[in-house]
Amino acid sequence: MTRPLRLSPDRLFSSDPDQRSIARALYAQVAGLPIVSPHGHTDPRWFATNDAWRDATSLLLSPDHYLFRMLYSQGVDLARLGVPSREGTPDTDPREAWRTFASHYHLFRGTPSQLWLDHVFAEVLGLEVALDASTSDLYFDHIAEQLFTDAFRPRALFDRFGIEFLATTEGADDPLQAHRAIRLSGWQGRVVTTYRPDGVIDVEHEAFRPAMVRFAALTGEDVWTWSGYLAAHAKRRADFRAAGATATDHGHPTARTANLEPREAAALFERVIRPGPSAADAELFRAQMLTEMAKMSIDDGMVMQIHPGSIRNHNAQLFASHGRDRGADIPGRADFVNGLKPMLDVVGNSTDLTIILFTLDESTYARELAPLAGHYPCLKLGPAWWFHDSPEGMRRFREMTTETAGFYNTVGFNDDTRAFLSIPARHDVARRVDCAFLARLVAEHRLADWEAAEIAQELTVGLARRTYRL
Amino acid sequence: MTRPLRLSPDRLFSSDPDQRSIARALYAQVAGLPIVSPHGHTDPRWFATNDAWRDATSLLLSPDHYLFRMLYSQGVDLARLGVPSREGTPDTDPREAWRTFASHYHLFRGTPSQLWLDHVFAEVLGLEVALDASTSDLYFDHIAEQLFTDAFRPRALFDRFGIEFLATTEGADDPLQAHRAIRLSGWQGRVVTTYRPDGVIDVEHEAFRPAMVRFAALTGEDVWTWSGYLAAHAKRRADFRAAGATATDHGHPTARTANLEPREAAALFERVIRPGPSAADAELFRAQMLTEMAKMSIDDGMVMQIHPGSIRNHNAQLFASHGRDRGADIPGRADFVNGLKPMLDVVGNSTDLTIILFTLDESTYARELAPLAGHYPCLKLGPAWWFHDSPEGMRRFREMTTETAGFYNTVGFNDDTRAFLSIPARHDVARRVDCAFLARLVAEHRLADWEAAEIAQELTVGLARRTYRL
Amino acid sequence: MTRPLRLSPDRLFSSDPDQRSIARALYAQVAGLPIVSPHGHTDPRWFATNDAWRDATSLLLSPDHYLFRMLYSQGVDLARLGVPSREGTPDTDPREAWRTFASHYHLFRGTPSQLWLDHVFAEVLGLEVALDASTSDLYFDHIAEQLFTDAFRPRALFDRFGIEFLATTEGADDPLQAHRAIRLSGWQGRVVTTYRPDGVIDVEHEAFRPAMVRFAALTGEDVWTWSGYLAAHAKRRADFRAAGATATDHGHPTARTANLEPREAAALFERVIRPGPSAADAELFRAQMLTEMAKMSIDDGMVMQIHPGSIRNHNAQLFASHGRDRGADIPGRADFVNGLKPMLDVVGNSTDLTIILFTLDESTYARELAPLAGHYPCLKLGPAWWFHDSPEGMRRFREMTTETAGFYNTVGFNDDTRAFLSIPARHDVARRVDCAFLARLVAEHRLADWEAAEIAQELTVGLARRTYRL
Repeated sequence: MTRPLRLSPDRLFSSDPDQRSIARALYAQVAGLPIVSPHGHTDPRWFATNDAWRDATSLLLSPDHYLFRMLYSQGVDLARLGVPSREGTPDTDPREAWRTFASHYHLFRGTPSQLWLDHVFAEVLGLEVALDASTSDLYFDHIAEQLFTDAFRPRALFDRFGIEFLATTEGADDPLQAHRAIRLSGWQGRVVTTYRPDGVIDVEHEAFRPAMVRFAALTGEDVWTWSGYLAAHAKRRADFRAAGATATDHGHPTARTANLEPREAAALFERVIRPGPSAADAELFRAQMLTEMAKMSIDDGMVMQIHPGSIRNHNAQLFASHGRDRGADIPGRADFVNGLKPMLDVVGNSTDLTIILFTLDESTYARELAPLAGHYPCLKLGPAWWFHDSPEGMRRFREMTTETAGFYNTVGFNDDTRAFLSIPARHDVARRVDCAFLARLVAEHRLADWEAAEIAQELTVGLARRTYRL
Repeated sequence: MTRPLRLSPDRLFSSDPDQRSIARALYAQVAGLPIVSPHGHTDPRWFATNDAWRDATSLLLSPDHYLFRMLYSQGVDLARLGVPSREGTPDTDPREAWRTFASHYHLFRGTPSQLWLDHVFAEVLGLEVALDASTSDLYFDHIAEQLFTDAFRPRALFDRFGIEFLATTEGADDPLQAHRAIRLSGWQGRVVTTYRPDGVIDVEHEAFRPAMVRFAALTGEDVWTWSGYLAAHAKRRADFRAAGATATDHGHPTARTANLEPREAAALFERVIRPGPSAADAELFRAQMLTEMAKMSIDDGMVMQIHPGSIRNHNAQLFASHGRDRGADIPGRADFVNGLKPMLDVVGNSTDLTIILFTLDESTYARELAPLAGHYPCLKLGPAWWFHDSPEGMRRFREMTTETAGFYNTVGFNDDTRAFLSIPARHDVARRVDCAFLARLVAEHRLADWEAAEIAQELTVGLARRTYRL
Repeated sequence: MTRPLRLSPDRLFSSDPDQRSIARALYAQVAGLPIVSPHGHTDPRWFATNDAWRDATSLLLSPDHYLFRMLYSQGVDLARLGVPSREGTPDTDPREAWRTFASHYHLFRGTPSQLWLDHVFAEVLGLEVALDASTSDLYFDHIAEQLFTDAFRPRALFDRFGIEFLATTEGADDPLQAHRAIRLSGWQGRVVTTYRPDGVIDVEHEAFRPAMVRFAALTGEDVWTWSGYLAAHAKRRADFRAAGATATDHGHPTARTANLEPREAAALFERVIRPGPSAADAELFRAQMLTEMAKMSIDDGMVMQIHPGSIRNHNAQLFASHGRDRGADIPGRADFVNGLKPMLDVVGNSTDLTIILFTLDESTYARELAPLAGHYPCLKLGPAWWFHDSPEGMRRFREMTTETAGFYNTVGFNDDTRAFLSIPARHDVARRVDCAFLARLVAEHRLADWEAAEIAQELTVGLARRTYRL
């Protein structure tokens, strides 16, 4: 039996009539605002070439680890979904892969993936029936048809989505060609890069050495000396700034920072660039580099984003067969209070610096992050991240941070996605959840309606624009 | 003043009219489904002998550590409640013990114990007034009267409760006589055992050595050698399978696992069976044995349940005077992400194995358990456990796991109880809380009503039947 | 535009009509009850001298780290708010400081500070417009005017607030002069002290030595020997008892306790009183002293309060410039289960002792604190503390502790404040949040209305009176 696909205009609002009507009114004021996306992972080549996408599977399914991890957890082989392994992209028929996905779509009930996808299907792609095994081919054909039209090219969708600003993320060893091409193309869409130097900071990364070679080539610095290495970072930061970047991004295993004497730091550098550094040295070097990056941010004004706590490639077998980013990243505990102290001892009281903190460990929201951000001038709280980028996750974020850090030490929403078509869906979910939270405060007489309206505006565009210095 | 005892048909549903009416409709479809109880601690001798129980105190109070721990925390001596010490069962008058309990019954307000007991009193025992000091004797007499009727014998209640499947738990050194007697009796009730080898794995358990002696006697293996020890496990697992078991259960202090080379494992075994093994070796041996058990589960198809994180016998004085299981088990922090990795490196990607994880540390729900279960094919999430087996606890479980793991990586409800009369109450609470959670998702347009209905059915019987391979 | 300042009579109640009407009825029964404040930090000299306060800034703003930490986090210099540094109180114009505060008042939206302050402004001070830049001077003048009237002297407000009992907190080296003056004055208000010996226990405190010198002078004991030191504590505890104290208070960095042999304890004492003790010894000494204090509490009947887990003076630069208590205390993780065990091994089963536990680490509520308090006779749970002393924080406290510990292992509300004018506001928030929580249980048929009414009474006055032995 084919089911209709309909998005309720009241979705994600409380069913309490008071709260719902307040939420509706708040949402009405922010639903149409532009999308400010200062942190994400879309591919800049899409906007450089403006080429059409090919099919539902390669666009929506096989690159999305939110989707294939769930199917994998239920015994579905990744090859059946067209997910690339180290041996390349399997020659799975995309239509067949989509069928596999469709017949398992019920697994996503109650997850944000279903919310996002149904929004993409209904609002972006104009589908009117729900996805299941019986509608799989209809979906696949309809999507293919749409993708070949000009209206579904990347730039056209960028405009249709009302995107005011879109940041991508590139490594320190990236030549930024796609971004140059965008600028040279004369297209007016504001797509800029973000400086993510992890690949040349994490000496345990399997591709550290080739990244360093490219880093050297791009900067002309002797990156194998501590001073040359730092100079190379400064140069590349300047390149990124010139390409429009306003922020850096740091995805470390932990929140540890360090503040070594220059001589100690240089000695550490010497040790870690030799083959087979100790785990302790590798960790200390990452720690030291956060402080170095913070100091450079005071100089060049780039906003610093720290995303600690993901234990990458937990599944050894899958990493061996499929490599990175295959859904086997698992959160670990985080310790911001002790971890960040060395860096904060250096830069914590600066009012010229903004450091945005993200966590995968919700137990730190009320215990660590809100108290830190509610005190240190340089610290702000990034939105609920990754696994927590969901209605319940975003609600918990507000419930556990607002009373200590307030709304004004947060920075608005980050969609953090490579799934371009879902960007409006993700911002819509965030706006709705924030309006629902504000509506509860108003309905419980903890906030005036006009205050809530101001805050909704701030959470939607104001804080992001100001924090990321757009 | 005597108060009436009445259970509202809407208990545990939201008071929001929308949500309540959706919850009612969902609940109406699952309220009458059979009880599937794949994890519990009832005494199989009850069903083997079908003897009548004696009185309220020995049936409901003195074996229930949920109850006497609360009274003890308020200064009530355990002897007054008829709780056995190492010196035996005190000769407290059961009626007097019940009076002590009744006059403290207000302590249980807001706890699941009160919900369960009131359901037992009203639904199972037909009482119509609330328990307090003034009704204590009425209760005691009424219950005694009922218990002597045939309708209150174990098998009669088993049928009346609509139990489809009931698992008990026995040690590796248990001869399974009661289960044999049940089978030989010709009674059709499906009561099966579960293989719980902790007593012969935890070398720090005070009864390890006598358990090993029985383990050897039952298997004819030389359990004091590593190969004989493993062979004994394999034999006993086969015995348990033959007695109907579909699962094993492992209650370790931590979630640590290990994957030692066979030679190292054998050497470790040699060390730990000597008197006075080190705590580190004892822990490493438990860790290694989880991996051994997982490998055997791939061979014999038994579902593996891991319940880590209870710090047993925290109260040294009470342990000295009263022994184990006297309410002094306190949860500790758990670390599944690092703890399980060695085992998952071996078996994690198997689709032939099911490992069900339980936790007493709710901070792991969203941070560790949901991401792990939402990725590894072998992992599933057991329901909210022990202290968290309660309306708020079950709600938090759904709120913190569903968005990442979905509903289909969970396994339905476990009553986990030795309190037989409360089994319907516990399943009823779980069904109501699940329906209330689903009703919120429907009322907030995050799930369609027909999807919720399917899920309610799955959470009530479907997932348990399939996961436990019944 | 000037906005009216109005407090809704329904604030903090659920907007669900059922729950709201139940909450209203419960609150109506407790709103007018006296204030019992067994744990706080008001200055006893206020009540001794009954001098008038001076202005809004010095009374409400510059001593309140909840307020200035938030402003500091947004880049406002502390000197602009009149906050004293190590060089003394800055000569900031109080009216100007108040303007700075008023123009940033929106930062407190959604925080308990705004709830408390608006209550102070509206109910205590009779203001009718909201605070913002445009009303700053009006506020400042109005408050100054009020403060100079007799009705706003400390004792008059004490009476007006309906305070039945108010505890302050003094160090072991405090001569208790203000408390003596209060008693000698003939005033009937019950303001008593609390014994807080941290200053002579924490050998890492920068003022440990001068505090010990005063401790010796006040007791005539040789406090530099272990036996003299313990005798000095006993004497001062007796002094405090004589001055009305019923409780002690212990603010340690961790919940660690120890139970050393007397000889080991004496040797440890010898080590830590020498200059530059090791951090491990300092920690062990604090741990041992909790057990010593618990033993003395069994002797003298003083209720023991343990507040662990605040990492003091996290901001090194601010500590250097401004000293302690400047908003840079950040919560750390707590471990009650292992930390308290040595002490509980000694006193845990005592029914003559009450130890009240507080936490800044909410992840311990359900995992550690509720199970411990739901078992050990000596343990009770203090209310949501500090950063968690807020509507969401108090709600989480009830949701995460009630099901295991019940209501009767909690102790009512502590305002824990030095902000005297906000005491009614804080108790009002607590009463409302508790009534809202109870109302939900009633509306969901988890509690009878008459049970909820009894509990509301207990949470408001009964438990505090009994637990603190008033």
